[in-house]
Amino acid sequence: MQFRFRPGTIATSSFALAPIVIAAVLSGLTGEAALAGGNKRQPIVIEDQGAFAFGGTSISNAAGGTLHCDHGYAQYNIPANERGLPLVMWHSASSITWEHTPDGRDAFQQIFLRKGFPVYIIDLPRQGKAGWGCTPLNYTPEIGRDQATFESWRFGLWPLGGEPNFFPGVQAPTRDPKWLDQMLRARYPEDNNPDADQFEADSVTALLNKIGSSVLVTHSGSGVRGWVTAMTSPKVKGIVSFEPSVFRFPEGELPAPIASAANGQIIPPGSEVSEAEFRRLTRIPIQIIVGDYVPDGPSTLAGPERRRITVIYAKAFIKAINDRGGDAEFVELPKKGLRGNTHLMMLDLNNDKVAEIMADFLKRKRLDKRSHPQGHF
Amino acid sequence: MQFRFRPGTIATSSFALAPIVIAAVLSGLTGEAALAGGNKRQPIVIEDQGAFAFGGTSISNAAGGTLHCDHGYAQYNIPANERGLPLVMWHSASSITWEHTPDGRDAFQQIFLRKGFPVYIIDLPRQGKAGWGCTPLNYTPEIGRDQATFESWRFGLWPLGGEPNFFPGVQAPTRDPKWLDQMLRARYPEDNNPDADQFEADSVTALLNKIGSSVLVTHSGSGVRGWVTAMTSPKVKGIVSFEPSVFRFPEGELPAPIASAANGQIIPPGSEVSEAEFRRLTRIPIQIIVGDYVPDGPSTLAGPERRRITVIYAKAFIKAINDRGGDAEFVELPKKGLRGNTHLMMLDLNNDKVAEIMADFLKRKRLDKRSHPQGHF
Repeated sequence: MQFRFRPGTIATSSFALAPIVIAAVLSGLTGEAALAGGNKRQPIVIEDQGAFAFGGTSISNAAGGTLHCDHGYAQYNIPANERGLPLVMWHSASSITWEHTPDGRDAFQQIFLRKGFPVYIIDLPRQGKAGWGCTPLNYTPEIGRDQATFESWRFGLWPLGGEPNFFPGVQAPTRDPKWLDQMLRARYPEDNNPDADQFEADSVTALLNKIGSSVLVTHSGSGVRGWVTAMTSPKVKGIVSFEPSVFRFPEGELPAPIASAANGQIIPPGSEVSEAEFRRLTRIPIQIIVGDYVPDGPSTLAGPERRRITVIYAKAFIKAINDRGGDAEFVELPKKGLRGNTHLMMLDLNNDKVAEIMADFLKRKRLDKRSHPQGHF
Repeated sequence: MQFRFRPGTIATSSFALAPIVIAAVLSGLTGEAALAGGNKRQPIVIEDQGAFAFGGTSISNAAGGTLHCDHGYAQYNIPANERGLPLVMWHSASSITWEHTPDGRDAFQQIFLRKGFPVYIIDLPRQGKAGWGCTPLNYTPEIGRDQATFESWRFGLWPLGGEPNFFPGVQAPTRDPKWLDQMLRARYPEDNNPDADQFEADSVTALLNKIGSSVLVTHSGSGVRGWVTAMTSPKVKGIVSFEPSVFRFPEGELPAPIASAANGQIIPPGSEVSEAEFRRLTRIPIQIIVGDYVPDGPSTLAGPERRRITVIYAKAFIKAINDRGGDAEFVELPKKGLRGNTHLMMLDLNNDKVAEIMADFLKRKRLDKRSHPQGHF
């Protein structure tokens, strides 16, 4: 249990203050005070909160019936005295990765609300709360997925029929069975159809046409879709991507696919786009962040080996951007002094420090200004 | 667009106030001030916000693989100086029914946060963000569902191939195409398997074991599941149900099923339970709220006719409870002076007045006290 602040009986004596004074206090509290590293459990002052559908289409039949479908679903919180550019947090496996840690600490939603950023958490079409698709959807449970998730998220090793073994120093409360239970319930079905890349980019483009220019925050499978969105919509003003796996490259620069030394599986680097399309990625600041347990050379551990290979692709992607005058940076957390981070680093025990690395990027790239004129939904 | 409060430059000058003073101002603002009918667009002060999985099970195979699945998904906001009993808002078709109105006004989440209630919005297993089920799930899009939804939600009539025609005086911005577009994107796939009643009740029982005693707020299809939960968990301390369709009755008191005068379809009343089980419903206050466009006698309009029949069942259900010394009340909004309300009354233009009827019930039944000791998640 976290400490929970109980103001008690003082409350009723002071709410008669003039609204403008109260608002000033509120906005100061959520904005600069949080940035200055104040008590993280202080209240969050929400100016606006809600949810809506974005994008989508409508289909019809000969009888004149229609169906509105294939929209996305956004949930948003706007703090008082907010910064100009919202953060669009785009998950790969579940919005819980942005909404809450499995052991009850703040996740990036709360951390960045406290820093004054409007936060939108989205479900893309045919997933989660945007399940009202235009096409049939099927989900089949996969027994053994617990073990696969545990290893691909680089918590450690969990052999079939055995016990979970954590990597040494992992940033997780490894002795807390409730933590693991929550983690193993973190997913919901994804849309991994390769056609979904442009489809989802178009969906988020519709979102940005509604909420205005934004910074995309992607993770894992949503990484590639963030690149495609930035090549589709001029309203993407920056991207922070946590362990993206797949990339786009200019013609002739697609890296050779590499086979996993753990299981022989080919890990795909992505695909090529035209020079003109690729150059759109040079117009915005991009930060890619990778965690720990990424070996220097081939490894027989499938999760680490996969990440090692995608890091090779990520570095080639960043070089292609920067060779063209772009502004992309690659952060390996261990080189910043952060150890033990997993593929779910936004939920790790030191997620506040991971957030600071992202916040520092937003500040350096002037993506945290309060002056961006925005038309919020 | 709603008016959005922009405190501007006064903010930075005042955040140096001592935390206790700030907290006192904050809690006063969200608590009593909102109850006193202050400006509804004032900020909401959130003490804690997050999400988590609840309930669920784990399945395994002969190879030793496992899968954690069939959990629910809760999103919560705890306001400062909160009341003791959380409101668990349990949707039938989509959490948007509690999260936000399609035209951008506050929904019940914001309205009741402003009144000081902790609010939990839940997706039940195999739906929405709780899609990681233990069984296969299939969704098939139904063209024509727009028209069926429009009529069953009692917005009016929408013949196949024609235009939507609203009922006169309906509490909706009928000239706003964006409103209708949002409404028609409000759903996501439901689990309407009859076995789901006890399954979902067990799931919510697990939630209440985690968050403590609560008031259930149900709607339409979740109505019956609320009754079953109250017969399963002693932690249900009250229920507000908006247009529930199906009920439980003591042995021998199941009403005869009635056929719709619109289409001949049999509208089921529910099923019987033992006298002992049914009497559990007499231990808590229950409020059932029904909107407008419910005819007095048989009607050829399918939506209104269906509601007319379920109202007959609802009245029998309430009588069975009160005959046994229980405390159930039935509210027809037109008799309270509210006209034009639909099946989605929590999103209607006068949803603030609908909320007041619920808030009044919570107050009369002493479900709004700040003294209920609770162990929040």
